[in-house]
Amino acid sequence: MNPYEMHLDKNAANFQALTPLSFCRRAAWVYPDRVALIHGDVRRTWAEVWARSVKLASALSARGIGVGDTVSIVATNTPEMFEAHFGVPLCGAVLNTINTRLDAAAIGFILQHAEAKVLICDRSFSETIHKALGMLEERPLVIDIDDPLAEGAGELIGDMDFEALVAEGDAGYAWAPPEDEWQAISLNYTSGTTGNPKGVVYHHRGAYLNALGEALAWEMPQGATYLWTLPMFHCNGWCFPWTLAATAGTSVCLRKVEAGAIFAAFAEHGVTHLCGAPIVMNMMVNAPSEARAPYTQQVQMMTAGAAPPSAIIRKMEAMGIRVTHVYGLTEVYGPATVCAWKEAWDDKPADERAALKARQGVPYVVMEDLMVADPDTLAPTPRDGETVGEVFFRGNIVMKGYLKNPSATQAAFEGGWFHTGDAAVWHEDGYIEIKDRFKDIIISGGENISTLEVESVLYQHDAIQEAAVVARPDEKWGETVCAFVTLKPDASLSADDLITFCRQHLAGFKIPRTVIFSELPKTSTGKIQKFVLRERARNL
Amino acid sequence: MNPYEMHLDKNAANFQALTPLSFCRRAAWVYPDRVALIHGDVRRTWAEVWARSVKLASALSARGIGVGDTVSIVATNTPEMFEAHFGVPLCGAVLNTINTRLDAAAIGFILQHAEAKVLICDRSFSETIHKALGMLEERPLVIDIDDPLAEGAGELIGDMDFEALVAEGDAGYAWAPPEDEWQAISLNYTSGTTGNPKGVVYHHRGAYLNALGEALAWEMPQGATYLWTLPMFHCNGWCFPWTLAATAGTSVCLRKVEAGAIFAAFAEHGVTHLCGAPIVMNMMVNAPSEARAPYTQQVQMMTAGAAPPSAIIRKMEAMGIRVTHVYGLTEVYGPATVCAWKEAWDDKPADERAALKARQGVPYVVMEDLMVADPDTLAPTPRDGETVGEVFFRGNIVMKGYLKNPSATQAAFEGGWFHTGDAAVWHEDGYIEIKDRFKDIIISGGENISTLEVESVLYQHDAIQEAAVVARPDEKWGETVCAFVTLKPDASLSADDLITFCRQHLAGFKIPRTVIFSELPKTSTGKIQKFVLRERARNL
Repeated sequence: MNPYEMHLDKNAANFQALTPLSFCRRAAWVYPDRVALIHGDVRRTWAEVWARSVKLASALSARGIGVGDTVSIVATNTPEMFEAHFGVPLCGAVLNTINTRLDAAAIGFILQHAEAKVLICDRSFSETIHKALGMLEERPLVIDIDDPLAEGAGELIGDMDFEALVAEGDAGYAWAPPEDEWQAISLNYTSGTTGNPKGVVYHHRGAYLNALGEALAWEMPQGATYLWTLPMFHCNGWCFPWTLAATAGTSVCLRKVEAGAIFAAFAEHGVTHLCGAPIVMNMMVNAPSEARAPYTQQVQMMTAGAAPPSAIIRKMEAMGIRVTHVYGLTEVYGPATVCAWKEAWDDKPADERAALKARQGVPYVVMEDLMVADPDTLAPTPRDGETVGEVFFRGNIVMKGYLKNPSATQAAFEGGWFHTGDAAVWHEDGYIEIKDRFKDIIISGGENISTLEVESVLYQHDAIQEAAVVARPDEKWGETVCAFVTLKPDASLSADDLITFCRQHLAGFKIPRTVIFSELPKTSTGKIQKFVLRERARNL
Repeated sequence: MNPYEMHLDKNAANFQALTPLSFCRRAAWVYPDRVALIHGDVRRTWAEVWARSVKLASALSARGIGVGDTVSIVATNTPEMFEAHFGVPLCGAVLNTINTRLDAAAIGFILQHAEAKVLICDRSFSETIHKALGMLEERPLVIDIDDPLAEGAGELIGDMDFEALVAEGDAGYAWAPPEDEWQAISLNYTSGTTGNPKGVVYHHRGAYLNALGEALAWEMPQGATYLWTLPMFHCNGWCFPWTLAATAGTSVCLRKVEAGAIFAAFAEHGVTHLCGAPIVMNMMVNAPSEARAPYTQQVQMMTAGAAPPSAIIRKMEAMGIRVTHVYGLTEVYGPATVCAWKEAWDDKPADERAALKARQGVPYVVMEDLMVADPDTLAPTPRDGETVGEVFFRGNIVMKGYLKNPSATQAAFEGGWFHTGDAAVWHEDGYIEIKDRFKDIIISGGENISTLEVESVLYQHDAIQEAAVVARPDEKWGETVCAFVTLKPDASLSADDLITFCRQHLAGFKIPRTVIFSELPKTSTGKIQKFVLRERARNL
């Protein structure tokens, strides 16, 4: 043993489990009077959020909830949802946020699989929840969120009200950080397009690190005003409840993502930051004038889920909104790469700037490693901007694994890297660019074809409402491109016309050989089920 | 075992030891061409700094240096010093930066105690180093830094040159993060005012966290330009070499802290950030016009070591320099509290603003806990702004302990808190304000007297060059105030005059009962040795 390992052990003074809960305690200490939550007429300070979270933890604890127990929640972006991100783990339990758009069968599966002891639910979803509860072997304690801002609110189906539960709690509850920072903090089910959803487990260490990682990736100042356009049930809102505690920011809650409400929040609350998919940006740039309200502040928007189109970026910039493009998955706590911007790019033409910004970029400071590699051999692909490989992550913001699913966990971590299933190229400058889901790639005559590329051309045709492209087995070429399209109401289009259109925009081998006009099968969250289409294409 | 602990173990994909070395690798990946180091005419990019650090590690490793070995360095803020912060720990070894102002005996003690295997030294200090080496049982491998900018450079006394060592290294060296993030990364000897210096051991985890903590406390953007006024031998430059890697900033090296050089760097390199004691600010605001150069950027200065006087803050602000006041000790990786500023304070009168800013504040986001408490019972003091207690820290940026000094380590961590030895009050808003070193507090007639307060009054007298105040035992009062003062050249002052002066500025019980005109005994780093004065006062 060397001298640096003698009599220099961990102790209570110099070691504590990393946990984002410490951020909330600190926010209440340093900025007790700063507004943490805005929701309609409700204003809650950081001191109040902390006090309520401690009482929530106390009440749950008194009811026997603790380490290893799951508390599920079905809610939109309300104060209760935000406070649950602190109150639930404060008693040692695991917070399981559930996508509000799921059907009863999916919610029932999740509650059963997660062995939820408590279910907190917004009354807007009580009809679905009621059905889901009927499918369970054992009914959890059900807590109602009775939000006055809920539209078309359903019945109250709970055993008690959220406020009553908080009121049960002891403000002097002696919370403690977890004994081990590897302890689970939350559980997020992926809305897979095949099979049952998988429960992604986050731990306190990763949540702490990614909360700081978001602040660093975005250069987020102390006291930002953040608009909750991103659902907190997506990867715990990409960990932003915890980031906002670390930076003592203000959360503006939003039940429903609508252009009018977004601009109203900009104008009324001076929103400086928000997150959302490109579709949210689309909604903003296309908002009718009556939905707009004047604002003067510089706004930062973080986007993920698809590469932001150049026209949208330009229009956002013209509206005083700076776009940061990030990429990630549920399994990596939300975003884990950022298209880190370089000053030298400022002077490039708009199209080139947009193409640079459309890339998914480089790892977060808190993600130790990333590579694009052969999915079988794990040999890194050359940084040539052309060779397609799979994206792999390795580091401290990769999930613990899938709950009660050792085979899926093992497959995901095969070879000591997390397999994203996303296909990408690696550019010379070390930035990655996603091309497709790996299993969606079409290989025709030995050439890789990105279905995203073909689909983006199809979407440019005025008659097309929706399009999805899959591989069709072919004796000569191995696979050929098969397109499924839905037309806009009253539009008409022939397969030949569409192929002619594609010829103007795509290399020959990328042009669909088959065009099928049909509705597209979707999951409850609206994702197109490509495996159904592949099956159809196989049987044509 | 609950389901969250089954089949969800750590593996290579989802767990890695936290280490700030990953920041440097990432900076070289994301911003390979961005300038990392400026020193005279030298410019090194992040790609170059990383490549050189890897080669340095490889060369050290090939010479048998690795985990548990100490590499000491005596150098000013040069590129070699910066690179050593990466290259040395990259091979697993511990970096021991040594204060260049120490005498040969102190350096000899440190090299012997640290069991240094390698000593890297700037030729400016070779005379002292040569003497120190003569005191060692075994001579380490000595590496010269032959900096062309060194003034009055001494002889080269090394076995080889730094550049030759780097050249020995293999660019493909397979470095790895430490197996355990608790592994030591650096060793910093405190310049105690009594006895031998103690070796404070930092670990990779703490260095990683505090590097991010600095960026967060300062809201430091990516790509800042940082001027090295703070010596890297102080708490590893408060961990800023690692912070600058995390934010891919540019370091402007500075061998010597002089107003002219500071302003020249502002003008020439667009410096945006720097750190330093209030004395550096003093130097800046009092700089003669010929030492000034024009600059237009907003500059951020972080200061610690003493509360910044209000007049200085006002003058700094007028110069476009925003002051952030932080507080810490070697044992907590440098600063660990920040006087977090609140918007509401912006409108207060200048004096009140300065008084607020003079407080040491609240813990960093990455320091889990802090309290002002009774030094014996550890009972927290009331938050009344009056009751004096000792400052205690607890969290992940508290040192591993003191090297080969288990009794001092145990004493420092008694009761599960790190004992700072600093006396402070806790204000109602949770901000702390340092009053004195705890052992320096004078208790007269049951009243606490801050020696800092008395000294600051003495310093206001025009005739006084230096002053130090200690307790003198007294039968009636327990202790009384005893002042030791040095007069300015050609100044004259009687004890009675001085006491009369004090009466105008201090409560009666705080006025010195004894005034001694004398030179003040000091350590090699210029700290006044109060224990010597206390001894003298006892024997008066």
